[in-house]
Amino acid sequence: MRDDEYVGRITLAQVAQQAGVSISTVSKVLNGRQDVAAPTRVKVERLLDENAYRRTTRVAHEAPLIELVFHELESVWALELIRGVEKVAKANNASVVLTESGTRQAPGPEWIEGVLQRRPLGVVLVFSTLPAEVKRQLRSRSIPFVVIDPAGDPDPDVPSVGSANWNGGLAATRHLVQLGHRRIGVITGPEDMLCSLARLDGYRSALSMAGLSADPELVRYGDFHVEGGRERAAELLDLADPPTAIFAGSDLQALGVLDAARLRDLRVPDDLSVVGYDDVPLAQWSSPALTTVHQPLRGMAEGAAQMLLRLRAEEAVATRLELATSLVVRQSTAAPGRR
Amino acid sequence: MRDDEYVGRITLAQVAQQAGVSISTVSKVLNGRQDVAAPTRVKVERLLDENAYRRTTRVAHEAPLIELVFHELESVWALELIRGVEKVAKANNASVVLTESGTRQAPGPEWIEGVLQRRPLGVVLVFSTLPAEVKRQLRSRSIPFVVIDPAGDPDPDVPSVGSANWNGGLAATRHLVQLGHRRIGVITGPEDMLCSLARLDGYRSALSMAGLSADPELVRYGDFHVEGGRERAAELLDLADPPTAIFAGSDLQALGVLDAARLRDLRVPDDLSVVGYDDVPLAQWSSPALTTVHQPLRGMAEGAAQMLLRLRAEEAVATRLELATSLVVRQSTAAPGRR
Repeated sequence: MRDDEYVGRITLAQVAQQAGVSISTVSKVLNGRQDVAAPTRVKVERLLDENAYRRTTRVAHEAPLIELVFHELESVWALELIRGVEKVAKANNASVVLTESGTRQAPGPEWIEGVLQRRPLGVVLVFSTLPAEVKRQLRSRSIPFVVIDPAGDPDPDVPSVGSANWNGGLAATRHLVQLGHRRIGVITGPEDMLCSLARLDGYRSALSMAGLSADPELVRYGDFHVEGGRERAAELLDLADPPTAIFAGSDLQALGVLDAARLRDLRVPDDLSVVGYDDVPLAQWSSPALTTVHQPLRGMAEGAAQMLLRLRAEEAVATRLELATSLVVRQSTAAPGRR
Repeated sequence: MRDDEYVGRITLAQVAQQAGVSISTVSKVLNGRQDVAAPTRVKVERLLDENAYRRTTRVAHEAPLIELVFHELESVWALELIRGVEKVAKANNASVVLTESGTRQAPGPEWIEGVLQRRPLGVVLVFSTLPAEVKRQLRSRSIPFVVIDPAGDPDPDVPSVGSANWNGGLAATRHLVQLGHRRIGVITGPEDMLCSLARLDGYRSALSMAGLSADPELVRYGDFHVEGGRERAAELLDLADPPTAIFAGSDLQALGVLDAARLRDLRVPDDLSVVGYDDVPLAQWSSPALTTVHQPLRGMAEGAAQMLLRLRAEEAVATRLELATSLVVRQSTAAPGRR
């Protein structure tokens, strides 16, 4: 880094003077170096922040990086998202650096130090929230960041990419109604996630548009995992008046529904129709292959990475991108009572 | 990089003198910089190589990286391998850089340039082979590399990690024999992959140890995908004297076998037992959950990353690590003709 790379309302030299340190110390703080005493670092960061300091000329990156942060790599979504970011990175001769934060919250302090040292093109976060302090640090270095937010609950001051959850719930339920189903169960995600509520509202609207009322007994909240899907489906299938179709909140939940049906000698789709959500690769591999709502995970990741590059080029960018969902009809749905 | 970081049989200055260039040019070549004319680069690389040049003192990495290269991220294995490398990286305060080479062969020339610039702790390659030139470039910079080789066909001069394929085939087949199966079909991988042959030999040995002969009609070669599994299973199940159990070459193939059974109204495991291979997460989620041979993908990736760090520390390291496979019994296997 050279000092003349900085212009702004004040110069690096002025920050150094106000902080009572050398210019090279300010430069070290900007680059995330460890050999600066903590109180000095705090003082310099505060001055940079108060003066809305922005790095305006960037160093030429010969081996540019895009940072991708997950709270957990466990998810079946992870690979789809990685591939989307990787595709955009490759097209821009960049490489992808992966970090697993290990918590639903922000990655730890050693992460931000690493980012400041690596000086990436930008940061894509999956489902994570950034503390205000970290946002400030990234902004003062002109490192853009975008959140991929499949939960449908974007932080208003952070650019994010999501998908159309309400429309997904509507499309899945309409498909079942059109096949002739009247008792349609739904297993949605956790009650405190906006995506669950949006999909459930889509389900209710589809029923209502068909002149059907939603039976509260047929609505279950679950997690997004196989075991939860199996348990909620067991409750629904063991009702005195069970549903002839179940709309699950994820493909994994739908696999649990398939298993609950098999254990009751119910054939899918002859005795029970099942719709999943996400359209991860395993939806095609289940037996029967799942009818499901395609959530464009790879496209969302591509969109987030492209948004980063546009932010970096200081182009005007919408701060919220919402991609369409679409129904993919495979073998797990049919008219009721086909046998 | 400082010039005094280099010691070897000859000094940087001597290389520069022999090449007729400045020391800073030699330094640029070592660091993968682009502002060196191609003929000069070739000349310097050759001199470094001829003199078996080795970087012996390393720069302190403040934000260290481990490179992970896939030929395709498509595979269901990818995420398991990423998580294994990520775990070791995190424990060593390093981050993982992902590259998808796009071919079964080595990643392209822009990749090696990026690696030389990023100066990672080391490189883990999945299933890829490195051209001799790239091996030389990495070795002269003391960047260690390890291949994860689930195909069981290691390049002798490259450190690699694999798993015990023959034992996996033996364990799967023994399990079926012990349940009472006598006609056991096998769908293995491509005929030209050593892992396929090793597993098939394990199958034959298990039959032979039980005094059973292998019926060539029951042996099929496939790919490792669902569709191929479905097709080969259809051939086996439509035989005049069909098998009562099928040992598939991958979990994806086994899902295809489950589907072929369902389409013929055969119940698994009552009418047909099915064993998969790999134990990727979806093996637990299928209906019924798959009995399968656990290939320790995550452990193999951890082993490869740890091997890198030991190579980097110049510890004596075995150049081939082979991890054990083990049978995981779930719901897809039972005694024959249970109904």
